[in-house]
Amino acid sequence: MQKKPYVLGLDMGGTNSVLGVVDARGHVLARTSIKTQSYPNINDYVNALYDEAIKIVDSVGGMDLIRGIGAGVPNGNYYTGMIEGAMNLPWQSVPFAQLMTDRFGVPCKITNDANAAAMGEMTYGAARGMKNFIMITLGTGVGSGIVIDGKVVYGHDGFAGELGHTCAVRGEEGRPCNCGKKGCLEAYASATGVARTAKEIISSTTKDTVLRNLDIDAITSKDVYDAAEQGDEVAKEIFDFTGTILGQQLADFIAFSAPEAIVLFGGLARAKEFLLEPMETAMNENVVSIWKNKVKIIFSQLKESDAAILGASALGWEL
Amino acid sequence: MQKKPYVLGLDMGGTNSVLGVVDARGHVLARTSIKTQSYPNINDYVNALYDEAIKIVDSVGGMDLIRGIGAGVPNGNYYTGMIEGAMNLPWQSVPFAQLMTDRFGVPCKITNDANAAAMGEMTYGAARGMKNFIMITLGTGVGSGIVIDGKVVYGHDGFAGELGHTCAVRGEEGRPCNCGKKGCLEAYASATGVARTAKEIISSTTKDTVLRNLDIDAITSKDVYDAAEQGDEVAKEIFDFTGTILGQQLADFIAFSAPEAIVLFGGLARAKEFLLEPMETAMNENVVSIWKNKVKIIFSQLKESDAAILGASALGWEL
Repeated sequence: MQKKPYVLGLDMGGTNSVLGVVDARGHVLARTSIKTQSYPNINDYVNALYDEAIKIVDSVGGMDLIRGIGAGVPNGNYYTGMIEGAMNLPWQSVPFAQLMTDRFGVPCKITNDANAAAMGEMTYGAARGMKNFIMITLGTGVGSGIVIDGKVVYGHDGFAGELGHTCAVRGEEGRPCNCGKKGCLEAYASATGVARTAKEIISSTTKDTVLRNLDIDAITSKDVYDAAEQGDEVAKEIFDFTGTILGQQLADFIAFSAPEAIVLFGGLARAKEFLLEPMETAMNENVVSIWKNKVKIIFSQLKESDAAILGASALGWEL
Repeated sequence: MQKKPYVLGLDMGGTNSVLGVVDARGHVLARTSIKTQSYPNINDYVNALYDEAIKIVDSVGGMDLIRGIGAGVPNGNYYTGMIEGAMNLPWQSVPFAQLMTDRFGVPCKITNDANAAAMGEMTYGAARGMKNFIMITLGTGVGSGIVIDGKVVYGHDGFAGELGHTCAVRGEEGRPCNCGKKGCLEAYASATGVARTAKEIISSTTKDTVLRNLDIDAITSKDVYDAAEQGDEVAKEIFDFTGTILGQQLADFIAFSAPEAIVLFGGLARAKEFLLEPMETAMNENVVSIWKNKVKIIFSQLKESDAAILGASALGWEL
């Protein structure tokens, strides 16, 4: 019997669901997508996805060559295969992995997107060969996937790795977070956190900055990045602040699992040149001495347009 | 061939080294000890330990019945079997597991005492049947052992689980910790941390307290406990403060590994009746909502005089 050479990777977002055929080296051979919100009924969604998928699967040789499906989905529970309580999806509490397995005729495993990203880096990317690392995704929010002894940590209930909601600033002065708590890392080290930092720093300084030409309530992390690229000192200060908060928090994460490296991914990670130095400095100042200058901070090596599909697909190889 | 029914557990402390013969149910059948500091040469230490051990081993049927040795030692590295840089021991950098294996003729595994405590609870104690929990030892310092999927987390270098040195109070107002950092959990939630809290709270209040009759620089956590037992309000306030700091920090630990329970052990854990409520309140106020009121805080079920030997011995069953 021929060994099945491909897996399917599904990246389900609140807007688009993108699915690709992936080989063992991490090449995306074909891809397709559907609009997530167009299917208020989960069965219609799975059927529509199947109808699109079968076209690209046939183009690479048919379903017999597919080993399994890995899916990165909001609030996906690895243990149960359920999607539960995801606010940006049309469905609440659906046995997604089972529905996919039934319709596609191959096994399906699901997890959340940050865990999928960690799997992707371990399987095809910057963390190949590493057994212990922590993936931090810096996007609209801050996600994390923790790998210990070569396995993603799911914990007792399947939801381990919510490092974006550890406390960066204790007490009343902590910024309100979308999760309802105060002072979470996500309220500082996400794209929206950077925008808020920009507002605070610009309002409290008289220094000259190109950012002052923009509507202060509409400044994005991209604006700050562009300004920093042009040498704007206030923009750099905004990234210094962000990198410092992130680095302090990384020091605590290291005390937990003693990783070989921290791997960063996501829109904000593009500001690497401005974040890395303050982040490394704060991390090494705050870490227990046995880890000082020992833990690497590295950046994702996956092509951004492929990363989500690749991450999800990595789960498919477990099947 | 008869299956070997016993293991040896060694608890190496800066003062005493206690060794016991343990059966699979966690009964300590016999025990002995030597003075750690009497042997400036590690070979003399191992020989002296062997000479004592053989007496109790013979009393239970001889070395043929011993499966292996588990040792909880300061700065013990599980991966390499080395003791390295332990400040309270006469030796620096010794291949302890190998020396023990050679002398005793049975395999030996080592780890640090907090990891040993976690193994002990999982094998014989409060965490039997649990696959995901975090052990926190509250003694002179604060140690931790993290269990994920039924295994103690050692990390990339063997030293994972230094949760006593995560940051409880950020910035300059954080108390100096023995590790050289500021604001570590250990500086608050250890016996010495409680003594310091007592000093601060007594100095800053005019409330009546029996603790004011004592030399403020010599107050111990035991004094505070005794006062709280008598209903002293200031003593209770000291434990409220301690429990709150600990609970806040536990919330962040939960975000990491989503444990089923937190298991507490050590001298300070005896103040359970005063610590538990503020700790649970702070933990549930600070944890991500999916874990609110879901993670149990439980206390060690091992007899305190046996716990260290039992914890160490648990490693012996892996052999």
